[in-house]
Amino acid sequence: MTLPKLLITDIDGVWTDGGMYYDNLGNEWKKFNTSDSAGVLFLKILEIPLAIITGEDTEILRRRAQKLKVDYLYMGIRDKIGVARRLCQEMGISLKEAAYIGDDINDILLFNEVGYSGSPSNAPDYIKKITNVVIDKKGGEGAFRAFIEHILVENNLMDTVLKKYLDDGSKFNQ
Amino acid sequence: MTLPKLLITDIDGVWTDGGMYYDNLGNEWKKFNTSDSAGVLFLKILEIPLAIITGEDTEILRRRAQKLKVDYLYMGIRDKIGVARRLCQEMGISLKEAAYIGDDINDILLFNEVGYSGSPSNAPDYIKKITNVVIDKKGGEGAFRAFIEHILVENNLMDTVLKKYLDDGSKFNQ
Amino acid sequence: MTLPKLLITDIDGVWTDGGMYYDNLGNEWKKFNTSDSAGVLFLKILEIPLAIITGEDTEILRRRAQKLKVDYLYMGIRDKIGVARRLCQEMGISLKEAAYIGDDINDILLFNEVGYSGSPSNAPDYIKKITNVVIDKKGGEGAFRAFIEHILVENNLMDTVLKKYLDDGSKFNQ
Amino acid sequence: MTLPKLLITDIDGVWTDGGMYYDNLGNEWKKFNTSDSAGVLFLKILEIPLAIITGEDTEILRRRAQKLKVDYLYMGIRDKIGVARRLCQEMGISLKEAAYIGDDINDILLFNEVGYSGSPSNAPDYIKKITNVVIDKKGGEGAFRAFIEHILVENNLMDTVLKKYLDDGSKFNQ
Repeated sequence: MTLPKLLITDIDGVWTDGGMYYDNLGNEWKKFNTSDSAGVLFLKILEIPLAIITGEDTEILRRRAQKLKVDYLYMGIRDKIGVARRLCQEMGISLKEAAYIGDDINDILLFNEVGYSGSPSNAPDYIKKITNVVIDKKGGEGAFRAFIEHILVENNLMDTVLKKYLDDGSKFNQ
Repeated sequence: MTLPKLLITDIDGVWTDGGMYYDNLGNEWKKFNTSDSAGVLFLKILEIPLAIITGEDTEILRRRAQKLKVDYLYMGIRDKIGVARRLCQEMGISLKEAAYIGDDINDILLFNEVGYSGSPSNAPDYIKKITNVVIDKKGGEGAFRAFIEHILVENNLMDTVLKKYLDDGSKFNQ
Repeated sequence: MTLPKLLITDIDGVWTDGGMYYDNLGNEWKKFNTSDSAGVLFLKILEIPLAIITGEDTEILRRRAQKLKVDYLYMGIRDKIGVARRLCQEMGISLKEAAYIGDDINDILLFNEVGYSGSPSNAPDYIKKITNVVIDKKGGEGAFRAFIEHILVENNLMDTVLKKYLDDGSKFNQ
Repeated sequence: MTLPKLLITDIDGVWTDGGMYYDNLGNEWKKFNTSDSAGVLFLKILEIPLAIITGEDTEILRRRAQKLKVDYLYMGIRDKIGVARRLCQEMGISLKEAAYIGDDINDILLFNEVGYSGSPSNAPDYIKKITNVVIDKKGGEGAFRAFIEHILVENNLMDTVLKKYLDDGSKFNQ
């Protein structure tokens, strides 16, 4: 696999364990994992744009994406593949030059179109068998970061990226 | 086993890991798993009604059930079997045509009456031994969805349902 | 072991996994497990009083204890053994007739004095080796209920208690 | 290894599992584990100062550190090693006399400078291989306490500290 020109990610079940916390007053929670923020950082070092495409539409995610300075945020999306296609067009690349990590049935069409796909270890079997790689982490336990690191390792870039981070970490630290 | 005409589910310990989050100000939380929402979706595709019958009575669950467009919601129920019986009567079916997933002692009587019963892998042993199937997932980790998928697989409907979803997903996506 | 005349329990690390959730506004959370409420129920059926003795002092626990109708609630306690002794005196029993489940260093003195002691499977090794039984559940995953069930099984009372519950469940259901 | 004169700890991924809970209204949560508070206690008994150095800056942690009476709290720190160096200078010790537990890439430089370093069992492999010890606990499941206990055991101080606690526990109990 070559280095993707765009990294697309699902959120619920990938950045989280799928948990949706509800209270009695109309508020809602998601639990992110700070471990994944290093994945975002590695993409910044490599200057690979990151796009979130997710079916949910919440302030929760808007704040998280803002904190991590995610490049593109698409929420409340039913037609994930349509959104991904338009973004690639704008960027002047093809979907085959993008990588995607997702975990469920609304990701299937996108898995089939991107150049490289991944799923967390706790995705359903019929999802895992259609992605290029099954990550050795569950959603919410660093699956996103591990997917990025997998791509780095496959491209012999892990040491380079870590070195860049250590040489000029303060520039990248959020 | 044949396809049930009604699917009944418990909530705490099935849709959740049994966790009840309390704060200092009188509010309360439950953690649902978005993975289970695909189970609700599969039932809609098959036009099998879904009923929640639970001992707790919270706005938390009311909101979750509303979001997933659950057909019947019975909360604060001590006599689960009475409620299930009346619902079946209204639907013109027998309890033997319903399937039920639960995880604890207040589910025992209902387990004995429905046509097909299931429990999550982390239910007590004396519960698991009286249900028709023990699902290979814990409560809150997708046990409900896995119960639905088990029923689909047993009826050779899994591929059909996935195909219907992919052919016309946007119609079913919540 | 004989049936205890009083059951004493710690909270954090037993009824919970030790988790203390803090927010930015001065509020705090604990996550209880509804599975443990069956343990409280079994004690009611056997008419064995339940006492909570804990170092923390929160509205969180006050609400949970109230919901489960716990008989005695002692919060903010540094001297657990002193409190336990006074309660036993009032009840006209000795500490040797009480059972206790706890998980940490502030429970050691009480472990040494009660007639029967238990700890969750994830307590430190030097705690587990001084309790009479190590329960096959982690704190927050039903360790309290499993401790009660262990005592019931040891006294050949499990079937009796379940039968009483099923015969007249609505009386006991909370 | 000798007993450190200063204990430094990271927070996210060490005192927590890395989880960052966001809601819809701008609030945020972390989940600490009461088990770690015994680690803080053991340091107090040995009169070893404790310093928290972390990249995040939240009221959440300020409250937790206050409750546990942590000696030094540095939040919002990009240059962890600079802060650690200045603190050691003020204390008249060298960084080689300090121990540090962390779990991620922003801890690497500090790992290289302190006298003794540890990481939780769920840190990335390239982190774990550069710390002196990998603790047999995950972040948020008592990794901090286990790191302290490991240091106590290595210095044959575990029994002494436990005895001091039991002899005069009320003085140390928070």
